[in-house]
Parts: sequence; C-alpha cells; structure tokens
Amino acid sequence: MSTARVRVGIVGASGYSGLELLRILAHHDGVEVTYAAGSQEGTEPLGAASPFLPAAIGSLHIESFHPDRAADLCDVVFVGLPSGTSGAIALDLWKPGKTVIDLSGDLRLPKDAYEVWYKKEAVVQQPQDVGAVYGLTEWNREQIQSARLIANPGCYATAALLALLPVVRSGLARPGMPIVIDAKSGVSGAGRKPAQHAMLGELQENFYAYKVGAHQHTPEIQAQLGLSDPASVLLTTQLLPTVRGIFISAYVPVHTPVSTDDVMVLYQNAYGNEPFVHVHPPGRYPELKHVRGSNLCHIGFHVHAEAGLLQVFSVIDNLQKGAAGQAVQNFNLICGFPETTGLLVSPMYP
Amino acid sequence: MSTARVRVGIVGASGYSGLELLRILAHHDGVEVTYAAGSQEGTEPLGAASPFLPAAIGSLHIESFHPDRAADLCDVVFVGLPSGTSGAIALDLWKPGKTVIDLSGDLRLPKDAYEVWYKKEAVVQQPQDVGAVYGLTEWNREQIQSARLIANPGCYATAALLALLPVVRSGLARPGMPIVIDAKSGVSGAGRKPAQHAMLGELQENFYAYKVGAHQHTPEIQAQLGLSDPASVLLTTQLLPTVRGIFISAYVPVHTPVSTDDVMVLYQNAYGNEPFVHVHPPGRYPELKHVRGSNLCHIGFHVHAEAGLLQVFSVIDNLQKGAAGQAVQNFNLICGFPETTGLLVSPMYP
Amino acid sequence: MSTARVRVGIVGASGYSGLELLRILAHHDGVEVTYAAGSQEGTEPLGAASPFLPAAIGSLHIESFHPDRAADLCDVVFVGLPSGTSGAIALDLWKPGKTVIDLSGDLRLPKDAYEVWYKKEAVVQQPQDVGAVYGLTEWNREQIQSARLIANPGCYATAALLALLPVVRSGLARPGMPIVIDAKSGVSGAGRKPAQHAMLGELQENFYAYKVGAHQHTPEIQAQLGLSDPASVLLTTQLLPTVRGIFISAYVPVHTPVSTDDVMVLYQNAYGNEPFVHVHPPGRYPELKHVRGSNLCHIGFHVHAEAGLLQVFSVIDNLQKGAAGQAVQNFNLICGFPETTGLLVSPMYP
Amino acid sequence: MSTARVRVGIVGASGYSGLELLRILAHHDGVEVTYAAGSQEGTEPLGAASPFLPAAIGSLHIESFHPDRAADLCDVVFVGLPSGTSGAIALDLWKPGKTVIDLSGDLRLPKDAYEVWYKKEAVVQQPQDVGAVYGLTEWNREQIQSARLIANPGCYATAALLALLPVVRSGLARPGMPIVIDAKSGVSGAGRKPAQHAMLGELQENFYAYKVGAHQHTPEIQAQLGLSDPASVLLTTQLLPTVRGIFISAYVPVHTPVSTDDVMVLYQNAYGNEPFVHVHPPGRYPELKHVRGSNLCHIGFHVHAEAGLLQVFSVIDNLQKGAAGQAVQNFNLICGFPETTGLLVSPMYP
Repeated sequence: MSTARVRVGIVGASGYSGLELLRILAHHDGVEVTYAAGSQEGTEPLGAASPFLPAAIGSLHIESFHPDRAADLCDVVFVGLPSGTSGAIALDLWKPGKTVIDLSGDLRLPKDAYEVWYKKEAVVQQPQDVGAVYGLTEWNREQIQSARLIANPGCYATAALLALLPVVRSGLARPGMPIVIDAKSGVSGAGRKPAQHAMLGELQENFYAYKVGAHQHTPEIQAQLGLSDPASVLLTTQLLPTVRGIFISAYVPVHTPVSTDDVMVLYQNAYGNEPFVHVHPPGRYPELKHVRGSNLCHIGFHVHAEAGLLQVFSVIDNLQKGAAGQAVQNFNLICGFPETTGLLVSPMYP
Repeated sequence: MSTARVRVGIVGASGYSGLELLRILAHHDGVEVTYAAGSQEGTEPLGAASPFLPAAIGSLHIESFHPDRAADLCDVVFVGLPSGTSGAIALDLWKPGKTVIDLSGDLRLPKDAYEVWYKKEAVVQQPQDVGAVYGLTEWNREQIQSARLIANPGCYATAALLALLPVVRSGLARPGMPIVIDAKSGVSGAGRKPAQHAMLGELQENFYAYKVGAHQHTPEIQAQLGLSDPASVLLTTQLLPTVRGIFISAYVPVHTPVSTDDVMVLYQNAYGNEPFVHVHPPGRYPELKHVRGSNLCHIGFHVHAEAGLLQVFSVIDNLQKGAAGQAVQNFNLICGFPETTGLLVSPMYP
Repeated sequence: MSTARVRVGIVGASGYSGLELLRILAHHDGVEVTYAAGSQEGTEPLGAASPFLPAAIGSLHIESFHPDRAADLCDVVFVGLPSGTSGAIALDLWKPGKTVIDLSGDLRLPKDAYEVWYKKEAVVQQPQDVGAVYGLTEWNREQIQSARLIANPGCYATAALLALLPVVRSGLARPGMPIVIDAKSGVSGAGRKPAQHAMLGELQENFYAYKVGAHQHTPEIQAQLGLSDPASVLLTTQLLPTVRGIFISAYVPVHTPVSTDDVMVLYQNAYGNEPFVHVHPPGRYPELKHVRGSNLCHIGFHVHAEAGLLQVFSVIDNLQKGAAGQAVQNFNLICGFPETTGLLVSPMYP
Repeated sequence: MSTARVRVGIVGASGYSGLELLRILAHHDGVEVTYAAGSQEGTEPLGAASPFLPAAIGSLHIESFHPDRAADLCDVVFVGLPSGTSGAIALDLWKPGKTVIDLSGDLRLPKDAYEVWYKKEAVVQQPQDVGAVYGLTEWNREQIQSARLIANPGCYATAALLALLPVVRSGLARPGMPIVIDAKSGVSGAGRKPAQHAMLGELQENFYAYKVGAHQHTPEIQAQLGLSDPASVLLTTQLLPTVRGIFISAYVPVHTPVSTDDVMVLYQNAYGNEPFVHVHPPGRYPELKHVRGSNLCHIGFHVHAEAGLLQVFSVIDNLQKGAAGQAVQNFNLICGFPETTGLLVSPMYP
C-alpha cells in the first residue's frame, strides 16, 4: 500500500483537529490529501482563510460532506466531528470498505456506558461489533495494524492511560481505593466553534474545573485500565488558560512499601523503546510546553512512601498525541509506513 | 488607636506583596503610610518607576531598611521579605514595642519543622514564644485582635485551610488516609525578582509541578488542621501561566455515607456570615478569575459518594487574601477598624 | 438631585461595558441600580452566573428591555448596546425626560458620516438635534453638566483625542499632512458575544490589523479634532492578545523647530489639574498595564526633531476611561456628584 | 561540500536563538552539530535541562567557548551572543578560515554608526573590510553564496526591509519625508537572560514602547534601504505580551496617484518565486500567528490614496526568519544545500 500515495480525506477539516491533521499530512511523503469536508465550505480555497496552512494543502476546497464523494476520492478517511455525528459517518464510510480513523468518542464505549456519559444515543452496541480497535498506539499496536476502523483515544484518556497503564497492569495499584486523576487542558480541546467560555476575555488569568464528576473520558480510562468498578477512577477536568496541552497529576494508592527504583523499572520496561514516550528520571518532572507541537508524551513520577501514594505526571499536546498526531501514528501502522512518518517534529520552545 | 491615622511602614515595598499593600493602604482612611523600605531604594520617588501607584503613595521614597528609623516613623510595620530575613526584622521591630505583621513563613512553624522544610536556620524556637499569632482571620479572630505579632499565612495554606477546616474540624474527614491537595498558583507568588522560570517566554503556554513532595506550606497546613501525622496532608504545588491566583482541588477521604446537604451545612455554619468567603451552591464551582484583585475566597465542593471522597475547590488572589489583603484584614482587627476597611474592592472581570 | 440616591438603569448589562458599569456603580454612594436589561435575561439573579459581581448588585435580575419599565424605575439610564439599536433606545428614553448616557456610536456623528462609516441607517440627522453632547469629559465639561443626553466617546477616540487635542488646538500640528494613529486594543473592546476571532486559541500569541482604512472611530476623531479634511487622520486599529487596554502611537507632522519643553507646557496646561490624566515627563512612556482597571489616561511623547514629527503615546483601559468609567464620570457631572466619585480605584498591577 | 555532513558549531547555545538553531539543525540532513558553547555549561547533557530538544541534540554538552576547540570541531559556526562579544568571536573564527554566521549587530554597520547606536566600541571599521555580507537572503543571494562571513540581519530589520525594499527601490516612496515604522515584538527577542521586564507578571496584559527614537536597528534599515538621510526612517519598537513574532506597520509617503494594482505588481515581481515570502492580495492582512514557528514572512498592504500614504504590514517569527531560520537559510546557500533544507516546517496554528 505504500508505493503510490495513499489518498486521504478529512471530515471536520475546519476544526482544530482537522487543521492539525492537514498540517501533519502536508509533510507526509506517503500521503495525498484528496478530500476535505467541514462546516466552513465555500468558494475560496482553504489557504485563503487559513494562510498558515502549507501551500500544498492550501489549494484544497472544503466541501459539505457527501459519503459517496468521500468514498470515491479516498482510501483512508479521518473523521473528527462532534460525538454522535462522527461515529455515524465513520460507519457509513467503513461499510463500503474504507479505512476509517474516528477521532470522536463514538466508538470507544459500549452502548450503556456511552449513553450514561455522553447523554445521547449510541452509534454501536459494542465497538468490537464493527471491529473498531482502540487506538492507543503504544499498547495496542498489533490490533491496530490489522484494523480497518480505529477509535482514536480521547485526549485526557491518552495522557492518563500512558501514565497509569504500567502501574495498574503490574498490580502495583492498590485495589478498592480510587485512583485520583487531577487533569488540566488547554482550550483548543474544546474545539474551534465560538463559545463564550473559550474567549480570551473570559479565560486569560482564569482556571476552573468543569464537568465535575461527569467527564465522559472517565469510563474510557476505567475500561482501558481493565478496572471494573466505576468508582475506581475519579477524573477531574480543568481548563487552563493555554491553547494546547494536557497535564495529568494522578494519585495512585499503592501497596507499601514501593521504591522509586521499582517504579522506574516499570516505566522503562513499558516505554524504553518507544519513540514518542519519554520518562523522566526521579526528581525531574514534565512541563506542558516541553511537548507542544509534537506527538510526544513526557512522564514523571514521585513516590510518597509515607502516604502510600504514587504520584504520576504526564503531558501531551492535545491536538497531537491527544488527537491528530496519534491518529496519524495509527494511520502509519495500518498503511505500513514507519510509525514516526510525518511526526518527527520537535516541540516548539519557547 | 483609631482617631488619628495609624502610621504604617512597609518593609519589602518593591516586591509584589509590598506593592499590593501600598495599593490597598492608599485607599484606607485610617492609615498614613510613613515608611517604605526595600531593595530598589533610590533618589526617585516610588511613583516615577511605578506610575501605576496612586499619587498619594507615589511621592514616597524607598529606603534601605534601618530598624531605628522604622521604629521612629511607624506604629505598625508590615514585613514582606524572603524567609530568614523577614522574621528576624519582624522580631527587631516587635521587641521595642511595634505591632508587626510578618508575611513570610518565619513565624509560622516550630524550629524543627521550619528547618526541615525551609532548609535554613529558624528565627524562633516556637512562634508562641514571641506571642506570634497565626493570622488566618476567619478562624483566629479573637487571638488576632489582641496580638502584636502576626504570622500572616502562606498563600497556598490560606486557600487550603479555608477549604478544609470546616471538614476536618467536624470529624468528617477519615483519619489514616491522606488528604490530597492539588494546588495551582499564578507566578506572582514567586515574587518580582527576575528568574528564568518566571519569564513570559518560559511560562506562557506552560504548566508544571515544582517542589514535589517538598513544599514548605505542607507542614503549615497539617499543623493548622490539627493533624499530627506528617503524611496526612499531601500538597502538590503547580505553576499556572497566570499572574495572580491560587486554585486548590482537595480530595478528602470521608466516612461514607456523606450527603451533599451535610457538607453544605458545614460550610454555611463556618462562613455564612463571613464578608470575604463565599460558598457556591452544589453544582457550581469557583473560578480563579472570579476573585482576582479582591480579598475574597470562593469555595465549591462535590461529593463523590461511591469513591468515598469529598472534593473541595477553593480560589483566592494570592496577593490579596493570600498575602497583602489578609494582612490588612488582620491589621484592621488589631487597630480596631471595621475588618473590611480598604478591602471592599470588587474583583476585576474580565 | 444628590440627596436621595439616583435610581440608575443599565441596558446591555450582560456585556463587558455593562458589567463594568455594575462593578463601578456598586461602590458609588449616590447610586442605586434599580434596573438591568440585557440579552441574558433569566430566572437566576445576576450573581449566580456572574459571582464576581458585588453582592449588592448580584441580586438583580436581568430583564428584556421595555422602555416603560425602564422609565418607571430609573432617573438615569446607561445604554450600551450595538450601534443602531443603542441610539434608538437612548432616544426612546430621552424623549419622556430621562437622562441618558449612550455608549454606542449612534449619537456621535452626523447622518452622512455615520452611514458611510457604520454602513447602517443613522438614528439622528445631527446629534445636536436632540441635544446630544459628546462626552469627552476633560474637554467638554460645561456642556456635559447641563446635558440630558450624552454620546459617550469611542474607546479609540478617547485615547486619541486626549493625546492629540492639546497639540492640534495649539496649532502645532502641520496642516495638509495626515496625522497617523497606530492604535492597538485588547479584545474586550469587541464585546462578550462569542466570535471566533476573540477565542483564546486564535488570539493568544497573535496580533493583527483589522478594518484597515475603515474604522468608524476615524471620522469621530477627525471631527472632534476640528479638522475638516477626511484625509487628515489615518487610524489603524490592531488587536492585542490582551483583555483590556487601548494603546495609541500617534505621529503628528509638526512645524520645525518644536522643542520638548514647548510640548510639555502644552500638556501641562491641558491636564495639570485633571484627576484622571497623567502626562509623563520626557524620556518616560506609558504602559498599557499602568492604567488597567482604572479610569486613568497616561500620556507620553517624543519629539523627532529631524523628521519633523511629534510622537505621542497614550493608554487607557478601554472598559473604564474608554467606556464605563468615562460614562460614570459624565454621570457624576450631570448629577452634581464630585467628578471622581466611584472612580478612585488604583490600577491593578501586576 | 554537501556529500559528507557539515560539522556545525553554535556559540550561544543556551539562548533562544541558539535553541532555535539546535531545533532546526536537528532535522537538517546535511548537518552534524558537533559543538555547542554557551553560558550554561555543565556536566549534564543539554537534553537534561532542556528535554524539549530532539534526542539527537540532547546528548551534547554545552561548553565554555574556546576558539581553538571550535575551530577543531566545526566547519561552520553560528555565533549568537550579545553585541560586542559576538562579532569579536566571529572574527576570531573567521580569521583561521572558518565560515561564520554572526547573529549579532556587530558586523552590520560601519564603525561610526555602530558606536552612536550601540553605545559601545565597534569590532570593525567597515563590515566589508572583513568581507562580511549582510544576510538578507532574498535580496543578497549572490553575495551570500560566495561569502564566508555573514552579518545575519536584525529581527526588526528583516521584517521592515522585506516590507519596504520593493517600494523604496522602485522609486515609489516620496523622498524628503520620513518612513514611519511602527514595530511590535514578542519578548523572546530580548533573550533568555532573566530580566524584570520580561517576567510574565510584568508583561501579561501589557504593551509599551521602548528605546523610543533610539533603537539600533534604525540605521541598519536606513542603510539597507539605500537612504542617506538619517531622518528618513523613524522606527518605534514596542513590546508585545507574546513569546514570538515581529509585526511591522510601515507608513510610506508616496507620490500620488498610486494604485493598488501598481503596488501588487511590485511585490509580485519581488517575491513571486520566493519560498518564504507570501504577499496577501489586497484586502487581506497578515497575522502574527500565521507564521509562528516557521521561516515565513507574510506581507500585506493598503493604499491610503487621499492621504498619500502606502501602508505595509509584515510579520515574521523573530526566532526563525528574524534569527535562526534566516541564518540556516544563508548557511544552506553557502554550503550548496537547497535553500529550504530544514526550514519547510509549517507554522503552528492554533
């Protein structure tokens, strides 16, 4: 599949995830973006309203979505629309044989959990009914390689799972007590559609929690951690006055005694060979800006021995590893490209 | 003491807390600022380099600190210098009979805890040896009124204690398990002295934890909560890309079952008549910017019943309720002014 | 009029100018806010959705505007709505005898200029037809005192006129050559209604010009400067990634030779006794943040002798001196309160 | 010179320009970074304190500068130190035959102008005495290709010259009247060394002019425009509360009549084939954020026909086209690489 260029379409190209996909794919040697659908369709080419896009992409026109046209023009389609709509379109394209990567939450949860947390009708009974694979690349590589339908993980879920999976899978976490995830996100995670809370006048010099006890990434994290008790994960999502970034502080009750060295070995075993995950040595901690603009996840931790808690920090760029970057990483696996193709951009600092 | 104007001095007038004291006291009817000492002494009046200060204050000259001169010119002195220096100067002024409000950590802890957490030599064996009263106004009013030496609380400690005292004192918190305080602060808390980490180039679009497991406000919170086990409070301090503000998310293990109504009653009993503490009704949560520029503390909470955790949020402006504002509140109590004098400024929004 | 409290209404209370009026008037001893109308009317009191407002104001309910109810409940009404609507409502209240301060552009220009620059139908033929007085307080005090209808100046116009009037009226400016005004504004000037360009994701780390050659404050400045040639003022408006603030750099062609001392004398004569205008000595220049949250205007200048240009800088807080603050200043004049009542708040720094 | 990798050294690697050079060169196929000198030398590799750097670069150690060691290890050296020091080191490396790109102002001006504007002793009598070529790539390509010593242009100068050269060289600008350049910069242009004015607490929500009438890029722009009168260019530099970016609003007196089409043709002739310069069609204007993180310059203009002024806007990323990016562009020319090598990164938006 990798000799000729793969014809790629993006549905939701006017949003932040869509723009980030365009930005990444413009520099991907194995891809030709042949189709862009979104809400801001018009007679102007993309580059006129968005002159920050690379010229190669700027001549595209955004169209209203039509499944037949998408199917005609594309081998692979990324769908990044609001939940409810996104998964339905993904299925419409998957049925006639397209490879689809869905960035919404529609294919990540079983119907019952979906309807409780998303408060709308589910698109599928079970994601596996349609062969949807959860696209947390580092932990699901084999399944992803042979999949044709990817449920790309949520941004909070990606940062939380990369931080917690080594600890939970190893049996280090102490069952029966909740893992507390105090999470912070930049505002681009809320999308590009105008909303009062996302205005600079409201958000500059601000910080607050939202959807307390009710964020829809909670059951996604719980299920992917393999925990059955709904109360085993407590996720608090908070809005940072930044554009990009997810920052996770997770507090994991552990069996005492646990040593710093033990934990370091766990993380090294999990991520020692991963191109996009960097684990800090003890005493150093990740910063949001250290991964900005890149597909990296940086992790750090501290053992609070007396309190019986392991604290884990992780950071990602929500539009990259938390959305478009990980989507391309999965795309690369599926299409047989080296996994890092198009993603070896350094973080922008300062 | 309240007929003639109280002659007030500020030591540390070039720093952010000192500037905020000047800003507040310029509008305080009962005060004449007669003395300002700091590191930026010079031939120019304050208003030349800091034209944002009110004219009444702008004609002051910052001097190098001399205890005799301070004692001559002032009835009451606010001392806001780095730990180690601040408390020593406070004592130098307290000994000859001045009333002193110290904004540093030097008079908040016994010698042993101080030296472990501040990693420098303590100024006193026990704060009570010199009659120092911990100036958390809402909880220590009587003692403050008759004090002549105030240990003004730390910014993180103020936000944490106002959030947690009603819960801990009521016996609602479950002993034997740590209270997790995930705290965030704007950068003005780190002072005005140039430092790379405080530069806009480094901090814009950034967020990270610092002094993990080692922040010196931890034992202050633990002691003031009346908890004896050092591991009973786990404080994580994190830097926000904002100028002002402290935001606390506290996770308190509670005996189940605990109802939302029970908790609301606790907070109403504690703060129903307080002019500077506002408790949100269930389902509403505080925002950092809602208290900016004011002496207010806003509190909100959520009961995670299944997980056996009570989550409490609180916000303050670190330079107001977290430093200069609370210092003036204590000053008012001591001098017999109405407690809110000079402090009835509305938050600045947007 | 000043013994009993003046009953005041605000139409447009949900917007930024309306909120700032509420914030100021809550601390105004001579005022009772009796009426608040706006687009976010609801069953909740103002303080529920906007808990940053002072308690005295927070119990108000926002209503849909009805002229009879406004007339019943108020002696004076501030109207801060979009152009077109605002002036019409102002006239509706003015006709039955109310005193009205209109914050829009509807009563500032004659019909022909209005329709060219605002691209909508004018509300009046000439503002003076309805006795509307242009409310640039420092330059129009006498007329304002006896007025019953105020056209409150635009934010850009206020900063530009305070900077330029002393120079132009003195004859120092060289006729026949354009005065270039390179102006910058924080985003709160664009209002609180959600718009993509005002989102933090778009504006953080951004800066750009808008309405190039077409900003509607251009003819307002030109007319108030007493210049007849439409090309005599060239205004460029640019968006800063800040919440508040207007910053003006004006380049005025002058007859050479002109000395720094001459210019200083002009400004001192104009503003030496003004409570809200501060002129910097030569070599010092104003900063946006030095006036934030206050009704102040700071001015500085530099004579480029060789180039034959006088450069003038001025800064205001667009929501204060550029809108609500100046409106209250005018209100005080009309109602016989000391002009500074409610406005003696120091800028918030940092 | 392009078969084996070019051995490259960076002097000033701890500063923002140095970090940006490292970030760019890490992805340059023809380069091996063999040497990094700076003020933060230490036993730790670069990647420990700066974990945002690509791994390939992170294992370097920053050393104190020694000319012999630099000469041994490098074919080409970038020198980005403060003026005075930088040019002297550049000459020390150039004398023994190295190719040197100096990012400071030391080799851009003749001695007399240098000493007036930089207020320190000049390093050279005339830049051409040592064969230094002014590295404004688009306008000096031929000379750069055969140079061994490059005076890389200043950030303000780059943005101003790319905007103004087509207009001035064509004779469109009207002599005898000053070109006014109202310029704005993000704070990273002031470097990474801690300074109070660069702190987030001071700069957030701020904006102001500095070095009014005295910025050292003024004579650089004037000379490169080929104008002999020192008063022909009036540059005002202003600090934006952003990390990156230069924004220029230039006001050029022109002979009337001049049409929009005429001006468009000038720009198209100048930049139609340039990979890094984009000229907006009439009615569209550049935004600072549209070029962030890239080596691009975006230009837009407006003809104020009545006023006899052509207004030109241009934006660059000060660390890219204004420093490290253009330095690599020049390096590519000298070393025979395609000019865009390592520089085809898209702007980061949002």
